[in-house]
Amino acid sequence: MANPVLVEVTRGTMVESAHRGAFALVDGAGALVASAGDVERPVFPRSAIKVFQAIPLIETGAAAAFQLTPAELALACASHSGEEGHVRQAAAILAKAGLDASALECGCHWPFDAPVARDLARRGETPTPLHNNCSGKHAGFLCTAVHRGEDLTGYVGRDHPVQLRARAAIEDLVGQALTIDACGIDGCSIPTFAAPLRGFAHGFAKLVSGHGISAQRAAAGRSLIDACMAHPWEMSGTGRYCETLMRAAPGRVFAKTGAEGVFCGALPDLGLGFALKIDDGATRASEALAAAVIATALRDEDAALAKIFDGLARRTLRNWEKTEVGEIRVTTPA
Amino acid sequence: MANPVLVEVTRGTMVESAHRGAFALVDGAGALVASAGDVERPVFPRSAIKVFQAIPLIETGAAAAFQLTPAELALACASHSGEEGHVRQAAAILAKAGLDASALECGCHWPFDAPVARDLARRGETPTPLHNNCSGKHAGFLCTAVHRGEDLTGYVGRDHPVQLRARAAIEDLVGQALTIDACGIDGCSIPTFAAPLRGFAHGFAKLVSGHGISAQRAAAGRSLIDACMAHPWEMSGTGRYCETLMRAAPGRVFAKTGAEGVFCGALPDLGLGFALKIDDGATRASEALAAAVIATALRDEDAALAKIFDGLARRTLRNWEKTEVGEIRVTTPA
Repeated sequence: MANPVLVEVTRGTMVESAHRGAFALVDGAGALVASAGDVERPVFPRSAIKVFQAIPLIETGAAAAFQLTPAELALACASHSGEEGHVRQAAAILAKAGLDASALECGCHWPFDAPVARDLARRGETPTPLHNNCSGKHAGFLCTAVHRGEDLTGYVGRDHPVQLRARAAIEDLVGQALTIDACGIDGCSIPTFAAPLRGFAHGFAKLVSGHGISAQRAAAGRSLIDACMAHPWEMSGTGRYCETLMRAAPGRVFAKTGAEGVFCGALPDLGLGFALKIDDGATRASEALAAAVIATALRDEDAALAKIFDGLARRTLRNWEKTEVGEIRVTTPA
Repeated sequence: MANPVLVEVTRGTMVESAHRGAFALVDGAGALVASAGDVERPVFPRSAIKVFQAIPLIETGAAAAFQLTPAELALACASHSGEEGHVRQAAAILAKAGLDASALECGCHWPFDAPVARDLARRGETPTPLHNNCSGKHAGFLCTAVHRGEDLTGYVGRDHPVQLRARAAIEDLVGQALTIDACGIDGCSIPTFAAPLRGFAHGFAKLVSGHGISAQRAAAGRSLIDACMAHPWEMSGTGRYCETLMRAAPGRVFAKTGAEGVFCGALPDLGLGFALKIDDGATRASEALAAAVIATALRDEDAALAKIFDGLARRTLRNWEKTEVGEIRVTTPA
């Protein structure tokens, strides 16, 4: 059955385009607090679970050994914009482990954020692996391998200890085995394993509630989530939606985008986690829906804050002359 | 009822994202040769019908009076990339009518094509209205107003003679009245009227077959379509999909993209027109589906050429390290 339309894009008085999808808002025990669509169908989480992938950075002791700062931990969980500060901090993490950019296996790309890419071009520069939106995550991966004395080459491979550790953490959080038949290669060359949205949402709820996981793992997760909430710019970039959502409720909302219309997050003081995917992969829709799901989670607890997120779920569209032409809106599912 | 999934995006062995939509392939008499989804639902055609909007440029005699070349006519039907040649030619059209860029009311935007935008930034420049992807169309609009001695200010307005002429041509081609309750404002500030996909497809079939329209209008349409097929770069830009499709079958395929997942086209020697829309507005899907619809149109007539377009409908996806990670493919509807 088709997932429901969750986000509409209007022009004038008409709906011009529509986005279908599913979301799961889950508590620490795994119960669905709210949902829409098929939350049991496996989806690739992509970058939305970088916090899960960074758990071994804490648990191996690498973060402590290399004295990574909270800002650097946030960068290790980031899909950053490749701004100068991101590049500098990614290099700093590598330097703490005695490495430089040549160790990175994430590849190069121009920053996704158009103004950042144009600034780079204006300075006559071209992107390095440090500009890759995943360079912080990869620097974190390398820290664990250096700390454990492992071979660094091929650390992105599915069977390298770095990826096996990340996979084990994800399996524990999602509550199921990740299988090779549901494995794809991500943009930055590491494996990405598909699992149900409900599982990813539960994983975030476990991390912020401590339910069903070891105290050590809960502490690792909380330190990463706290670092991201304290340093939203390091975790995303100037004007990016993750930054906007987290700045709207400092310390109360964690939110992380992923490619192909995925978005995950958590509300630590409510012990809730969420995961969503837009079927067609559109970021404009995943962003709007993420704000709406956060509003849903907050509705009973803090109506005023919920209203702010309702506002973030709606975006006015303007043309090149700044004339209002339509809007992006969530067809409120809860 | 939901439109069917027409395009899938895979990662590894799984479908990661999917695009629903509809298409109509129509002959000069208006009969559906092939279709999928709801082709009677009104959609905004956006830039995919710039040829319809340029008909008055020929019919008023403005193109002849200002001695516009075929390349300039193609630019008047273009969503161009804002490359240096596009900017120069848009300025040349305006100059022929005694105008300059200050007459344009389309607004400014950085070129959509990322490498072109970065080149502009690298030269320390910023975009002017001439870089707007619609500047050629607007230059053509202005030519008709100058030729007719009309007030130029506000030529983008719904009730300005320029837009009334375009609207009358579209109504004739689509075969129905365009109403204000189905009118939105386009990115470049002109009105865009919603009508069924089937109507837009029929309009293109009328233009290339001559069915059901005046000989004068058919001639105007053919001169524009021929100009675009002869000058695909002027009509789009380096490496753009419209250019790729038209270069794959010189003089036999006309193809024009529009915002929000719309694509229209025509096969002049077969007397067919097509129109399609991806429900969620994704260009990656509208491009793939356009190639597949052209392949469908050609299947019986020219199997070898159809195979080339089948190939263009499938795109391998690679990550930043150039590793193959998946593909975009059409779930063949015909």
